[in-house]
Amino acid sequence: MKDVLRYVRDNSDDLIADLQRLIRQPSVSAKNEGIEECALLVSRMLKKSGINSQVLRLNKGVAPVVFGEVMSKKNPKQTLLFYNHYDVQPAEPFDLWDDDPFSGTVRGNRIFGRGSADDKGELITRIKAVEAFLKTTGDVPCNIKFVIEGEEETGSANIERYLKKFKKKFECDAVIWEFGYVDSKDRPVIGLGMKGLLYVELSAREPVRDAHSSLAVIIKNPAWRLIDALKTLRDSSGRILIDGWYDEVEKFSKTDLKLLADEPFDEVAFKKEYGISEFVNSKKGLDVKKALAGDPTCNIAGFLSGYTQQGAKTVLPSSATVKIDFRLVPKMDPKKQFARLQKHLRKNGFSDIGIKLYHGEAASRTDPSDPFVAQVKAAAKASFGSYVINVSNAGTGPMHSFASVLGAPCLSIGSTYIFSRIHSPNEFARIDLLKKTTQCMCHILNNFSHA
Amino acid sequence: MKDVLRYVRDNSDDLIADLQRLIRQPSVSAKNEGIEECALLVSRMLKKSGINSQVLRLNKGVAPVVFGEVMSKKNPKQTLLFYNHYDVQPAEPFDLWDDDPFSGTVRGNRIFGRGSADDKGELITRIKAVEAFLKTTGDVPCNIKFVIEGEEETGSANIERYLKKFKKKFECDAVIWEFGYVDSKDRPVIGLGMKGLLYVELSAREPVRDAHSSLAVIIKNPAWRLIDALKTLRDSSGRILIDGWYDEVEKFSKTDLKLLADEPFDEVAFKKEYGISEFVNSKKGLDVKKALAGDPTCNIAGFLSGYTQQGAKTVLPSSATVKIDFRLVPKMDPKKQFARLQKHLRKNGFSDIGIKLYHGEAASRTDPSDPFVAQVKAAAKASFGSYVINVSNAGTGPMHSFASVLGAPCLSIGSTYIFSRIHSPNEFARIDLLKKTTQCMCHILNNFSHA
Repeated sequence: MKDVLRYVRDNSDDLIADLQRLIRQPSVSAKNEGIEECALLVSRMLKKSGINSQVLRLNKGVAPVVFGEVMSKKNPKQTLLFYNHYDVQPAEPFDLWDDDPFSGTVRGNRIFGRGSADDKGELITRIKAVEAFLKTTGDVPCNIKFVIEGEEETGSANIERYLKKFKKKFECDAVIWEFGYVDSKDRPVIGLGMKGLLYVELSAREPVRDAHSSLAVIIKNPAWRLIDALKTLRDSSGRILIDGWYDEVEKFSKTDLKLLADEPFDEVAFKKEYGISEFVNSKKGLDVKKALAGDPTCNIAGFLSGYTQQGAKTVLPSSATVKIDFRLVPKMDPKKQFARLQKHLRKNGFSDIGIKLYHGEAASRTDPSDPFVAQVKAAAKASFGSYVINVSNAGTGPMHSFASVLGAPCLSIGSTYIFSRIHSPNEFARIDLLKKTTQCMCHILNNFSHA
Repeated sequence: MKDVLRYVRDNSDDLIADLQRLIRQPSVSAKNEGIEECALLVSRMLKKSGINSQVLRLNKGVAPVVFGEVMSKKNPKQTLLFYNHYDVQPAEPFDLWDDDPFSGTVRGNRIFGRGSADDKGELITRIKAVEAFLKTTGDVPCNIKFVIEGEEETGSANIERYLKKFKKKFECDAVIWEFGYVDSKDRPVIGLGMKGLLYVELSAREPVRDAHSSLAVIIKNPAWRLIDALKTLRDSSGRILIDGWYDEVEKFSKTDLKLLADEPFDEVAFKKEYGISEFVNSKKGLDVKKALAGDPTCNIAGFLSGYTQQGAKTVLPSSATVKIDFRLVPKMDPKKQFARLQKHLRKNGFSDIGIKLYHGEAASRTDPSDPFVAQVKAAAKASFGSYVINVSNAGTGPMHSFASVLGAPCLSIGSTYIFSRIHSPNEFARIDLLKKTTQCMCHILNNFSHA
């Protein structure tokens, strides 16, 4: 292991250069921008590090999955799978970036760019960990697989189809999830679970063309119409008012509550980072952590109607559109929740409101007593000196698909500093954490071989 | 008069060419695009038709007013003033136009383009009417003045200052307003009044940067915050809930009600044009006409928050902004109403909502028994065969400023077909109506000289 860890230390410039190469290839799945090019680049990078790679495809129009594989000579019976994604969020609003979002500019300990943290930085630490074993020992401690998808940021609509089609190829004993946070005290967060998601777009589309706003006395305004509909969905406290929405939600177990109580959360630093004076409903302490791990949400991600540029235009718009993401918790079925939303609008007299379903994904949690958890804890301790356990991330990923199709425990651990501004302008990765995490991945592989 | 009317008939190609020239000069006041250039072009056009012209200015940053003047040799005691504007609304959304909005494309009886009807078409009919008198008789039947401003579409913020500064220069006995509608049966509408306007922008600006939408469990969403505030402003029927909003609103007089009852309104054609199945609150008949002439409104002209492009982005936006125009009726004071809005938000716990005042304008109505009304009626009858009286237009203009500063009655009459799509994509002017209206303006000038 000493040689392996030394290799990681000695080759960090190469890690940065490869990450810059990845950032400079835009791969915005929401706009199908650079997806194919990025998949091919990732596959070449795997090969360069000594990892066999194939680009897997479903039907046309679906982003390819990059597959990587190294069989272990000394331990061919155990397989660890790294799940990652090569696509990124849109970089808009561009004018709030200090650099070109696809430049990979390095300043001090930070490398900036869309995808620098989410998820190209994470991917590079894992590739480099495997490379370190291959270059120094000529072998890996266990079989290693990479499943790197290109639609994570639009909701992983096809990953379950990939998992089912390539179930044999992807067979494994455990999964390291695509991301992992490092908290404000530089402790890696071992994540046991993720929330689900239901992403929809609602729209009001009358009149058929924009009208002079003086006609608002007789023509209904679609923005007001949409707002009237929205106000029936949740109250001012954030509670969702759709019939049956919370029916399947379960309370935290005693073990979960204990883990939540132990979980650190720096309220002051968090509020400062986002410039807010208080949390939703003035939450504090354990309630904040319970909300992050276990509260469903109804979030407005975008609202557009009428004239939104400089100055005043007296127009009655012809349409109003809102994008909403509902976060779901374990046992909530996205399909069932979508049907409840449809029924709610119909029942409340909003049959005229159009509903478009973008995607749905169920929540997932790994049992804290699974032996894989102990191995990852030990690796975190060895590389970072400490760690934190997180019952469920507030975000969403297709963990439920992996857990149910592959039947393997899934844990998240990685290099993303909690204030890395992922999904926002000036996203960055911390170079020190990229290095430490690469070493942590080496420990995970090493520990896994002894399991 | 025969020679004058024949001149108008014989020179209609020239009218179309001049209107195209005007349309091809963009003049979007909301973006300060082409304003100076258009003012100079209009002044050159006035001179070309034999009208003395000056470009008047206030301080820097204020659009110039183009002034035009012809003194009558035979009747130097009476002055009619034409009020017009050379600026236009923004042309967005560009992709809904069949032609370049600044092309002035002619197809059949229509000339298309931003400003073709509102207000460049109206202006051209008036210039050409004066030209017809000058070219055929060498004189005009009364003194004629033109006041052509460049900020009408952003709310005429400085016209009152111009009126006060150049009060002597603008002195007149009556004003023909900048626009005039022709109804679906090709009858010109003689308008006695206009509503007022209060245009504001409200915004919620927390958190300081976009955040990952998973954080919606603890960070307040500014779009929801703004929607919560908006829902306190009006109910679903459109009634404004701000304390005292309707305190100064007066009922229609018996004369007004009689005029409203006589006023035709083609509900079927109107609904068809805008693709709507019913009016606000299922209004019908006289109630529709009463609403157009006398109901205050709270219209959402624009709403923007978060990610509004293609696909799904799971973001918690850092801001939400709404543009609102409130239409006001006689006796409502824009300043007072703005103060009421401010107080309302404060009182309802929305002190965090930013309020920007774009502008305010009071409503105005001319007395139906004023002798000027009879002269304009006679001119309309002579040129169109019939006419319609409208108690108040549903839209807004600085009529109150003209009436109060110049002390003159103001009437609107013009060439704009009711379905000309002003303020909307594919705005057009009807060529037959441009010609008839030019003749109507000749009759108005002639009648006015005999008054």
